[in-house]
Amino acid sequence: MNGLSIETVLLQIFVLFLFAKVAGMVCERLKVPSVIGEIFAGIIIANTILFQWLSLDVDLGLFEVLAELGVIFLLFAVGLETPFSELRKVGGTAMKVAVLGVVLPFLAGFAMFMAIDNNLNEALFIGAAMVATSVGITARVISDMNLTRTLESRIIVGAAVIDDVLGMIVLAIVMGVAMGSEGGILDIILVSAEAVLFVLMVIFLGSILLPKLRRRYAEQRGPSSPLQCGERKRMALSPLPFAIVVCLGLAVLATVAGLAAIIGAFLAGMVFAEFKDKWPCEEDFHPINQFLVPFFFLYVGMLVDVSSFGAIIVIAIILTLLAIVTKWFGCGLGSLSMGRSSANIVGVGMVPRGEVGIIIANIGLSYAFITEGLFSVVVFMSMATTIIAPPLLTWAFRRKMDLDGVCGMPEPSSAENE
Amino acid sequence: MNGLSIETVLLQIFVLFLFAKVAGMVCERLKVPSVIGEIFAGIIIANTILFQWLSLDVDLGLFEVLAELGVIFLLFAVGLETPFSELRKVGGTAMKVAVLGVVLPFLAGFAMFMAIDNNLNEALFIGAAMVATSVGITARVISDMNLTRTLESRIIVGAAVIDDVLGMIVLAIVMGVAMGSEGGILDIILVSAEAVLFVLMVIFLGSILLPKLRRRYAEQRGPSSPLQCGERKRMALSPLPFAIVVCLGLAVLATVAGLAAIIGAFLAGMVFAEFKDKWPCEEDFHPINQFLVPFFFLYVGMLVDVSSFGAIIVIAIILTLLAIVTKWFGCGLGSLSMGRSSANIVGVGMVPRGEVGIIIANIGLSYAFITEGLFSVVVFMSMATTIIAPPLLTWAFRRKMDLDGVCGMPEPSSAENE
Repeated sequence: MNGLSIETVLLQIFVLFLFAKVAGMVCERLKVPSVIGEIFAGIIIANTILFQWLSLDVDLGLFEVLAELGVIFLLFAVGLETPFSELRKVGGTAMKVAVLGVVLPFLAGFAMFMAIDNNLNEALFIGAAMVATSVGITARVISDMNLTRTLESRIIVGAAVIDDVLGMIVLAIVMGVAMGSEGGILDIILVSAEAVLFVLMVIFLGSILLPKLRRRYAEQRGPSSPLQCGERKRMALSPLPFAIVVCLGLAVLATVAGLAAIIGAFLAGMVFAEFKDKWPCEEDFHPINQFLVPFFFLYVGMLVDVSSFGAIIVIAIILTLLAIVTKWFGCGLGSLSMGRSSANIVGVGMVPRGEVGIIIANIGLSYAFITEGLFSVVVFMSMATTIIAPPLLTWAFRRKMDLDGVCGMPEPSSAENE
Repeated sequence: MNGLSIETVLLQIFVLFLFAKVAGMVCERLKVPSVIGEIFAGIIIANTILFQWLSLDVDLGLFEVLAELGVIFLLFAVGLETPFSELRKVGGTAMKVAVLGVVLPFLAGFAMFMAIDNNLNEALFIGAAMVATSVGITARVISDMNLTRTLESRIIVGAAVIDDVLGMIVLAIVMGVAMGSEGGILDIILVSAEAVLFVLMVIFLGSILLPKLRRRYAEQRGPSSPLQCGERKRMALSPLPFAIVVCLGLAVLATVAGLAAIIGAFLAGMVFAEFKDKWPCEEDFHPINQFLVPFFFLYVGMLVDVSSFGAIIVIAIILTLLAIVTKWFGCGLGSLSMGRSSANIVGVGMVPRGEVGIIIANIGLSYAFITEGLFSVVVFMSMATTIIAPPLLTWAFRRKMDLDGVCGMPEPSSAENE
């Protein structure tokens, strides 16, 4: 590790993890998602004397790897909550909400940066970073407010899940265009087609064909009796190593296909979501992610250069406003059939970008398609939309109650028992 | 990472993990502990074209860090199974078995290498590597044979647990002597005393004083009623991040005190073992270790240089025979009061060194107290004692049954249901 002793590396890991967890806990007390605290911890460490004191200036390579492992397992876990079979059930409204909530923010981000810099790849990545909705943060806010059973919440979560898949397809296309843009228009089409084909093929094979084959196989065998358990147990593998192998394997395959590793990891999670009953691995991934994921957000924070913030703060605020307005308007438009106050709730609920926007910007940065300054802009936008979403959502739900006189919403104080 | 792209690193991690798991599974099928397979996977990778093909020759630093994290969390998990309060209950026989099983192998290893090389530090580390008994492997063999409820098994597991603590103290002293041996005899005494003091102080504070204070506090509060739960829940932290922080913190503290990081991690595990009811974290560490620990054994395997084996094979075989005979004789002597055939079982059951001997040799190698050749010798000894233990233990139990005519031992075929 460039001459850093293992003791120094251990000290770095300890201090970084401690900082991230303390900052995350402080944020949770303040009712802000802990992700925000972990990014802040990274920003503080990178922009103070701590960075030199911990010898982090010597070699960040290790933390890049820990961060990459963290984000790969995180996207696998997100994929685990996105079974394709459920996707088909969410219905027309959620689909409309998701598509409009993807198209409008993408066009806004793309247009804004084509106007400023006239740089195709840059504008594509900013547009892609505007697309995603963080299922995790949205669902968390709703469950904190004890509102999971309302129609609006179901539409929001359904649309956010579709958003994840659409976000991965947009990312695949954007990477295809950016990679192929050195050649001609034919190159772009070929590489993008290859990318989309990869995504669709994995979904078809893993989430449609395999589960179908399995059901047919199960029907042929007939209902399994408890007596056969002994025989089966011998064949059963622990699902975790198997899941890790498939997750890492598809991530590597995705990079070979010119896509981001996280796309492969996300698709691997989607495939395992179809086999939850046979190979449950959600609970096993949770502790691994509790250890590794903070390193991703720390790393993101450490890449933010505070001293350059003066120059980009105006662009960051404009992009943030665009991100809020286009998502709110697009998703509201998609759900207008539910009434204006409900559409308002859905629009506001889809605003938080959370980690997904940052992840996409990080890929753009690592391939040098966007600059460090623009990366900081996207981090600002993602953090701002995430911080603003909980109070906005509370306001939107209250407003609907005042207007409609709907009762039955529990007191917010009881939400803590969730 | 010395110019290796993140895609290459991801490919390395994927291939290494896949190899380790497949080799581990093959070993489990052959009724050999999976640890052996993981080490073999490392040996194969390091000594074939795979090493260059995966660019592992460019930078092994990352895998050193993953291996160190793996072994730290592994020793924490071993500590979790070693509550100090249980240690006091194991009784005189187990204590005698443990002490004699530590002293004889240490003296044998020490004497052999003082005779060969007349190098104090080298002889100390080899002696220390001879000491440990792998609780994990012994317990696994016994439970695979469905014999956990026999008196012999309880003595073996009790003595193996004490062995772990004694092994850590021996390692602390050996490191103290090796570190201080550049100064005079006073230095050696001071540094060793500091090392032992660190171990005893953590045990006293964490495993004796804290649990006592907690019991007194609980008595003052009186029995907790379910009504107070809401209030308590708000204070409760997720135990895993807290456990990781304490584990890494004590590991760092141990390195600051001139000890091995794993000693701190082991002690942290012992402390958490006293608070299992309040902060259960065993199940959370299991998945983390399933991912990280294979990298330690892979790394161990990768450090073994097969081409040098011709020169050291005789020494390796002699050391292995010494390791088996001294452990068997020492532990048998300690349990002779149980009768000769039972003492035979206990002696054989304590033979497997498993990972602990390797871990100690690895520390000796990283501080350059022992050579790479000697490290390979210790790996050979640890693997050989581990492979030989299960069939020997089966033979010893069968022998006792034939001699005593004791019934009630279940058929080995039903052991698979365990």
